[in-house]
Amino acid sequence: MVASEVRALFAVASRPEIVSLAGGMPAVDALPLDAVASTVADLVTSRGPVALQYGSAQGDPELRARICDVMAMEGIADAHPDNVVVTVGSQQALDLLTRVFIDPGDVVLTEGPTYVTAINTFAAYQARVVHISMDNDGLVPDALRETLSRLAVEGARVKLLYTVPTFQNPAGITLTAPRRAEVLDICRRAGVLVVEDNPYGLLSFAGEPVRAMRADAPDDVVYLGSFSKTLAPGMRVGWALAPQPVAARLVLAAESAILSHSMFTQLAVERYLATQPWPEQIKAFREMYRDRRDAMLRTLAETMPPGTTWTRPEGGFFVWLTLPDGVDAKAMLPRAIAARVAYVPGTGFYADGSGRNAMRLSYCFPPPERIQDGVKRLADVLRAEILLRRTFVSHPATDFPRE
Amino acid sequence: MVASEVRALFAVASRPEIVSLAGGMPAVDALPLDAVASTVADLVTSRGPVALQYGSAQGDPELRARICDVMAMEGIADAHPDNVVVTVGSQQALDLLTRVFIDPGDVVLTEGPTYVTAINTFAAYQARVVHISMDNDGLVPDALRETLSRLAVEGARVKLLYTVPTFQNPAGITLTAPRRAEVLDICRRAGVLVVEDNPYGLLSFAGEPVRAMRADAPDDVVYLGSFSKTLAPGMRVGWALAPQPVAARLVLAAESAILSHSMFTQLAVERYLATQPWPEQIKAFREMYRDRRDAMLRTLAETMPPGTTWTRPEGGFFVWLTLPDGVDAKAMLPRAIAARVAYVPGTGFYADGSGRNAMRLSYCFPPPERIQDGVKRLADVLRAEILLRRTFVSHPATDFPRE
Repeated sequence: MVASEVRALFAVASRPEIVSLAGGMPAVDALPLDAVASTVADLVTSRGPVALQYGSAQGDPELRARICDVMAMEGIADAHPDNVVVTVGSQQALDLLTRVFIDPGDVVLTEGPTYVTAINTFAAYQARVVHISMDNDGLVPDALRETLSRLAVEGARVKLLYTVPTFQNPAGITLTAPRRAEVLDICRRAGVLVVEDNPYGLLSFAGEPVRAMRADAPDDVVYLGSFSKTLAPGMRVGWALAPQPVAARLVLAAESAILSHSMFTQLAVERYLATQPWPEQIKAFREMYRDRRDAMLRTLAETMPPGTTWTRPEGGFFVWLTLPDGVDAKAMLPRAIAARVAYVPGTGFYADGSGRNAMRLSYCFPPPERIQDGVKRLADVLRAEILLRRTFVSHPATDFPRE
Repeated sequence: MVASEVRALFAVASRPEIVSLAGGMPAVDALPLDAVASTVADLVTSRGPVALQYGSAQGDPELRARICDVMAMEGIADAHPDNVVVTVGSQQALDLLTRVFIDPGDVVLTEGPTYVTAINTFAAYQARVVHISMDNDGLVPDALRETLSRLAVEGARVKLLYTVPTFQNPAGITLTAPRRAEVLDICRRAGVLVVEDNPYGLLSFAGEPVRAMRADAPDDVVYLGSFSKTLAPGMRVGWALAPQPVAARLVLAAESAILSHSMFTQLAVERYLATQPWPEQIKAFREMYRDRRDAMLRTLAETMPPGTTWTRPEGGFFVWLTLPDGVDAKAMLPRAIAARVAYVPGTGFYADGSGRNAMRLSYCFPPPERIQDGVKRLADVLRAEILLRRTFVSHPATDFPRE
């Protein structure tokens, strides 16, 4: 699925009559808008000449200190503001890291499936993306070992492992604690830098944040964080926490890319963290997203035809749905749109064309009753699709014609 | 002068006892802060769920329409919002353009001297920067022709002419109207895309904005604009106006680089333009900067020793000062700092080590009486430097030892 197709999908999916289970937009309408409004107004009247001026390429020092406090909630006790680089969402951190580390042909390892825009960024720098398979416990260490051995034989330069270990986008899966240690150990021995992208870590439905991989490997992990899911993506405030030499190179790359980040949005986030009860707000988000996840899982269990399977996220925004053999999620999408429900077909989350019989379902944005309606519509479409296959296709499932 | 040196300079120059003629920071304290505060607060309360959400990679359509109105003031009558890409300052537009057009070894032509961070960006993509000389009428067309001929013989791939034709940074010079036509014609024949970077165009001391090069060459120019000098750099809202195929590639590059720009700052600028008397604010800025320019030019004329020359800007932020033969602006800087005045040595604005006996003086940020003090201190330092040379250096000026 190319970028223009994704944009066309989101344009269609934004129509009011369609239940969109496609986008990953957080529910910002749940924010205390009056409090945000007074925070930004106070910022301009009290510190306007600073908030409206140029800042440094590394980001505001006060915000970087508060970012360290946020990361402490995930077990990162030793983060220093000097090692934090504020970025335009964590997407920019990923772009700058790729710019700094990747030469054309270098290998980036990622989960399969993985975050779609990360694939685009790696492709923009002509990296070769190699997927590592996942199961319900996350990235499979044996698969990682085997892939590294194979790539070593090929003489490939493996530079990075890009992973979303917690409430993964798109699979909703979390890497278990023993596997985190194992993955870190494998990468350390192989000289592969781990990029831990963790936008959803604080949105744990169990209440306790998941311990970050970075907490146990300060020298081997670049941690990417974001306020897009815990506050507002419209601020575009994310960050990288990196070992000092990497952080220094990211700052130079950021300066070349954008000169400096918006002081206004940086200080707006800093003031929000300083003056608002944000841990309570995150708790409210967690409970809201848990209700939505519950609505999705319950309706999936009630409506989906046999042979359909799905993940059971403990946090974050996404469920990964695997369809019965031979059903093509991308081919089915126009019929789903006609039935007023949208999703993202699985192929978009792979660099190698995998994922045809899978899709990502988001429960972050629509309220529970809309999610319920959407999943029911999807189940109806899927049943019709299976029936159609049985009626018209005499080939065995593995020979099901593909476009 | 490497980036770390520039940062160290700005850190020193920000001390209160030092008159900084170094930075290019606009005087944002002259903005109506109460009006800005109420604009952003109203935005959050009335349109919070949109302003705090993700946006599109191209930028908000309403803002893009208003940007077309702004460009119309500079004679660009045919701009369409579809051809505008909103960027994180015009710096990001420059970065994305370089990413899209430049392969390692490609040539970018620029004025000599030119904007320092543009040099860094071109270097980041391994472009070869070739300077074209300027006189008081701007870029010299004959020099452009000769350079293109020479590069053609070498077989070099010349991709872009990067120019700040109006109130140039750092030289304060404006390309005359006949030369604009001539430069456009030369580049068109040579197949070189013109990148017109125009952050200062509306800050004309004569009152009438200078007609943009883009106004007369819609297919041959990518125009870069910015609200950093007419509103506030802390918003980081700039843009590119480009022919459709270029704009489409910039959007894809922007998506890969940052996913999307801040909707919050984009809509804050859009609401400011919609609800505030911004042409009057620009007029106030123009008059303030003109007073500061006057203070600088007057004090230069009163105090500078013979053999020193400088440009006379008709708008913008900068004067370019050329020192008597053999005086090295970078070597003199520590003594200037000790005398409580700072500037940027000329070498920073060249990719080839030129500019040793020159410096950029900014009059944008300090009030007139501080500018007067700063220039007087600089003249004292320079006189002492000249005396020191006469006393201790017996070599002829052309053999003056260089580091």
